[in-house]
Amino acid sequence: MDNFAFHNPVKILFGKGQIAHIGAEIPADARILITYGGGSIKANGVYDQVKAALAGRTVLEFGGIEPNPRYETLMKAVEIVRTEKIDFLLAVGGGSVLDGTKFIAAAAPFQGEDAWEIVASKTPITSAVPLGAVLTLPATGSEMNTFSVVTKWETQTKLGFASDLLFPKFSVLDPETTFSLPLRQVGNGVVDAFTHTMEQYLTYPANAPLQDRFAESILLTLIEEGPKTYAEPTNYEARANVMWCATMALNGLIGVGVPQDWATHMIGHELTALHNIDHGRTLAIVLPGVLSVRREQKKAKLLQYAERIWGITAGSEDERIDGAIAKTRTFFESVGVPTHLSAYGVTVETIPVVIERLVSRGMTGLGEHQDMNPEQVSKALTISA
Amino acid sequence: MDNFAFHNPVKILFGKGQIAHIGAEIPADARILITYGGGSIKANGVYDQVKAALAGRTVLEFGGIEPNPRYETLMKAVEIVRTEKIDFLLAVGGGSVLDGTKFIAAAAPFQGEDAWEIVASKTPITSAVPLGAVLTLPATGSEMNTFSVVTKWETQTKLGFASDLLFPKFSVLDPETTFSLPLRQVGNGVVDAFTHTMEQYLTYPANAPLQDRFAESILLTLIEEGPKTYAEPTNYEARANVMWCATMALNGLIGVGVPQDWATHMIGHELTALHNIDHGRTLAIVLPGVLSVRREQKKAKLLQYAERIWGITAGSEDERIDGAIAKTRTFFESVGVPTHLSAYGVTVETIPVVIERLVSRGMTGLGEHQDMNPEQVSKALTISA
Repeated sequence: MDNFAFHNPVKILFGKGQIAHIGAEIPADARILITYGGGSIKANGVYDQVKAALAGRTVLEFGGIEPNPRYETLMKAVEIVRTEKIDFLLAVGGGSVLDGTKFIAAAAPFQGEDAWEIVASKTPITSAVPLGAVLTLPATGSEMNTFSVVTKWETQTKLGFASDLLFPKFSVLDPETTFSLPLRQVGNGVVDAFTHTMEQYLTYPANAPLQDRFAESILLTLIEEGPKTYAEPTNYEARANVMWCATMALNGLIGVGVPQDWATHMIGHELTALHNIDHGRTLAIVLPGVLSVRREQKKAKLLQYAERIWGITAGSEDERIDGAIAKTRTFFESVGVPTHLSAYGVTVETIPVVIERLVSRGMTGLGEHQDMNPEQVSKALTISA
Repeated sequence: MDNFAFHNPVKILFGKGQIAHIGAEIPADARILITYGGGSIKANGVYDQVKAALAGRTVLEFGGIEPNPRYETLMKAVEIVRTEKIDFLLAVGGGSVLDGTKFIAAAAPFQGEDAWEIVASKTPITSAVPLGAVLTLPATGSEMNTFSVVTKWETQTKLGFASDLLFPKFSVLDPETTFSLPLRQVGNGVVDAFTHTMEQYLTYPANAPLQDRFAESILLTLIEEGPKTYAEPTNYEARANVMWCATMALNGLIGVGVPQDWATHMIGHELTALHNIDHGRTLAIVLPGVLSVRREQKKAKLLQYAERIWGITAGSEDERIDGAIAKTRTFFESVGVPTHLSAYGVTVETIPVVIERLVSRGMTGLGEHQDMNPEQVSKALTISA
């Protein structure tokens, strides 16, 4: 096990009716900006619950944060934060609203020329507006981590950044707020959480058996509960279990002291930027290909994955690995997420474009050994053509 | 899954050489009191590492905190904190030093007549001296939680208390600091961590499959790594894995949203208070008896435990349950911890005394259903006579 530091101060309020308690988590005199997306929170009652919990407080609003939140949109909220002297941000929505709100939190007090620097040059931030979250879509883990991914629409650039200053002060996870989600988003969320787990697990053995088993716990639970929550949107228990899995998949815990491989996310981001394919869906396309192409470097863990997750113990090593990858595809498709480019109307002609974009940003060696080269990226995408 | 709040802001610094980084975690102008136990930290180099990391700082010392830390001893440290205007406590040692230091942290600013009230009457504290920890014995989980158990020697009373103000600001977990531990303490620590996990897991099904699997992850890893670290004290990886298991076993994570049963700890504390048996050893005596006596209420989880942890799937329900309990005893004994009262020179005559003490404090219904009565406690101890 490698040395590590672990610190996650986010307070989680989990369960039915927890939105009612957010008032106690926000300073009484705060000037609050509620941020949200396309307005589904107004249709499903979440907005009303939030407003009721903050009755009597100073509350402004900023809606319209889109999926893959755009710098251009978010800067309008930054302007409001500055002019209205907002000192608490409350993100109400899914990962895009949370990520976008983290950018707003970082950009508002940023002193440099252009806040895009925070993302593009990873300029460290020294202050941020405090934020809280009411999560309505289990998927990205943004509710309990410091990460944010935003897109500059002008240049079709989708990039991540992080700062410990961007931990939410609290996050409400009420599974009932997710009952009205479109099925497509439910499936995307399951795939996103599963892939986050795989990217911290499916590398090489690092003598960290507890981290391995924690990751396997999340994978097994998603496989068990994912199709259930897809089939029964108002099954509280199934949705609660998926929601908790998604948070635990990317709050830092399962990744302590072990190697990580974020190649799938890196490649997936390009497919989103180029073709506007949902984030979760890009992962379902890319992950199986990456596992297949990297089978030599990942052999020991792929065999462990085949056995512990899918119960595959018979056959040659390659057969077991192929079997586990096939099971992974079938699982993704069982929650309504196709795993081939063609299903999204994208042809192999996009592959050199993806590679050119990765190379242009210096991403020539991806993966836990930083040696997944453009040729292998091309092969991985071709497998999922 | 029940509603829950989860919040654990402790910063963990894990691995070789991490003591060197504690200076950055303590305010530069703090007046620091280092607290420790019998002096083993001076023999094994930990004390020197701590002093080196705090060179140039204002540092006082308080040694001599005993196992099952005593109110009478701790109040001497409280006096030093008050007179010397200490504003940071650094606990260096195992669970007893950490728990004792939490009491010191709570008692020093306490305004009431007698600080024992904090423990005996659970008088909520409103302030505490901030503390950090350098853990040298993986066992209690005190390094990443708010709990403390202290003993009033005068009345032979061992009781727990807790406050969110008592989260350590940071805890250093360097497996190398544990290489010189007496084997007895290593075995005790493995049993303590295992039992903490069982007390949050072995109750009744609550539709929380991820919490179940996280708990099972810890149990399986302790079973795998415990005997290894007992046999090979300087095997860094084995010790690191046990250390991380012990922390994760009682930092709140595996217990969110599920029922808990702390009967084993309650009963064990009486055996320590009466016979001065090491805490971990009392748990090894009590847990098998509790599981056996409570087999009806715990049936579903006992069968799950038998299958997932011990691979027992054949035989009648009672046979599988008995098999799993027998395996639990064998495991405890494999790390040098006897599981019968007789091995500690204690006879069944102690049983009514234990019960009388529990009843005198109103503890007449223990367990996840608050219905484990004195008769059942008696049976549980008789089974482990």
